[in-house]
Amino acid sequence: MASTNTYSQDEKSKAKRYAKRVTYDKDAVRSIVEAAPILHVSFNTPRSQDAGPQFPTILPMLGAIDQDPAADDDQIIYLHGSSAARLFRLGAGDDEYGLPVCIAATLLDGYVLALTPFNHSCNYRSAVVFGYATKVTDSDEMMHAMELITNHLITDRWVNSRTPPTKSELIATGILKVCIETASVKVRNGGPHDDKKDLKDEATTARVWTGVVPVRQVLGDPLASPDNAVQAVPSSVDSWVRNTNSMREGQMIRSMRE
Amino acid sequence: MASTNTYSQDEKSKAKRYAKRVTYDKDAVRSIVEAAPILHVSFNTPRSQDAGPQFPTILPMLGAIDQDPAADDDQIIYLHGSSAARLFRLGAGDDEYGLPVCIAATLLDGYVLALTPFNHSCNYRSAVVFGYATKVTDSDEMMHAMELITNHLITDRWVNSRTPPTKSELIATGILKVCIETASVKVRNGGPHDDKKDLKDEATTARVWTGVVPVRQVLGDPLASPDNAVQAVPSSVDSWVRNTNSMREGQMIRSMRE
Repeated sequence: MASTNTYSQDEKSKAKRYAKRVTYDKDAVRSIVEAAPILHVSFNTPRSQDAGPQFPTILPMLGAIDQDPAADDDQIIYLHGSSAARLFRLGAGDDEYGLPVCIAATLLDGYVLALTPFNHSCNYRSAVVFGYATKVTDSDEMMHAMELITNHLITDRWVNSRTPPTKSELIATGILKVCIETASVKVRNGGPHDDKKDLKDEATTARVWTGVVPVRQVLGDPLASPDNAVQAVPSSVDSWVRNTNSMREGQMIRSMRE
Repeated sequence: MASTNTYSQDEKSKAKRYAKRVTYDKDAVRSIVEAAPILHVSFNTPRSQDAGPQFPTILPMLGAIDQDPAADDDQIIYLHGSSAARLFRLGAGDDEYGLPVCIAATLLDGYVLALTPFNHSCNYRSAVVFGYATKVTDSDEMMHAMELITNHLITDRWVNSRTPPTKSELIATGILKVCIETASVKVRNGGPHDDKKDLKDEATTARVWTGVVPVRQVLGDPLASPDNAVQAVPSSVDSWVRNTNSMREGQMIRSMRE
């Protein structure tokens, strides 16, 4: 059913501005989270009543999105960190649902230069996800999530490094599972949209260049560590670098079109 | 005094992990916020008592850091958005201090490939800032903040576009000022740190490549808009692109050293 492939809008995820740039499509959420190397995770820390106003915290984290094995059309996000870190202690709490978190995956695709500062903009892909985080305790699920996160970071790295993790590595690792409650995606592509009045003003148009300066993350040449004993950069690393760069170049070019 | 150049640690900003990667230095905060094209801003939206658990929200935003004119050794962050957007309505609230926000500036500098998934890491620069956001209402300060944010996005763009903004542009623009209460910086550089046991295991070291794959954001060739009437890309845009790329390349190389 088509309806299962979009998230239900609620007060948290409903777009307040530029509604036509927004979707609630699950595949769109997935593709942006998959393209983002770093996720920003926000949550509230418990505090005593007299501790002053509630500040949320943001942590930049590594993670990966996955199908929920419990429900085919649902997605979950696994987050990685040390089991000692603050968020993981919170996520281990007793609450029925888990810790409410907001996760942002943001990709900058370009700078949009208009005639006026007011009409300047950025091209970007942004997914904002709301869900409940709980600590993964099942060792099979933990191993699955670690493999997913490792391979999300560096394609095929799991089989190309020393696996499986040892018991002490597993104990020192924390994985949070975030069940997605709602999510939205906002995308801007293309060039500037100037006001007619400015476009007719030749004193302005004659001197102000307008257009797009695209931007992408580029992986550079691998640099071996002093301890490295493998002579050449292996094809697994080499193709990850080349494929990632070529994918990002393609995305950059697409983002310049409306 | 030296003490005025660091933020006071509190429960929010105090490092829980990897304390030696952390500083509270104001210049370090400033340089990371200045290098980040996008800021992630987190806040709690007011809600009715029975609305369920409190989820924070994250918005990716444009902004700039500045000296606080009211206190020489203090810094503030200006955030840009439409005056209609949710955050700006909240920031206009009656609270004595303003809206508690957390701002993250994150730059990914490299992928750190170790022998085991457990010791994989990323090189990064991360600043996390806590402060109170209020809406800027003074028109001089607003103009100052708009110029700062525009030039932070694209060097010298303010004088090279149609300025000053019109009255209706000013009315439709929202600027939030965030007075920084506390902030911390976390930086990771260099190569992998593998466990001795793995380094001695020749079956592993013979097949697993280790090192760093650096990453940087690269600005591409400017693409003029269909409406553009300036024949060549002006030197202001061209040098912004070249200088930004060369600065980021330098930073990428530095991040590969310990």
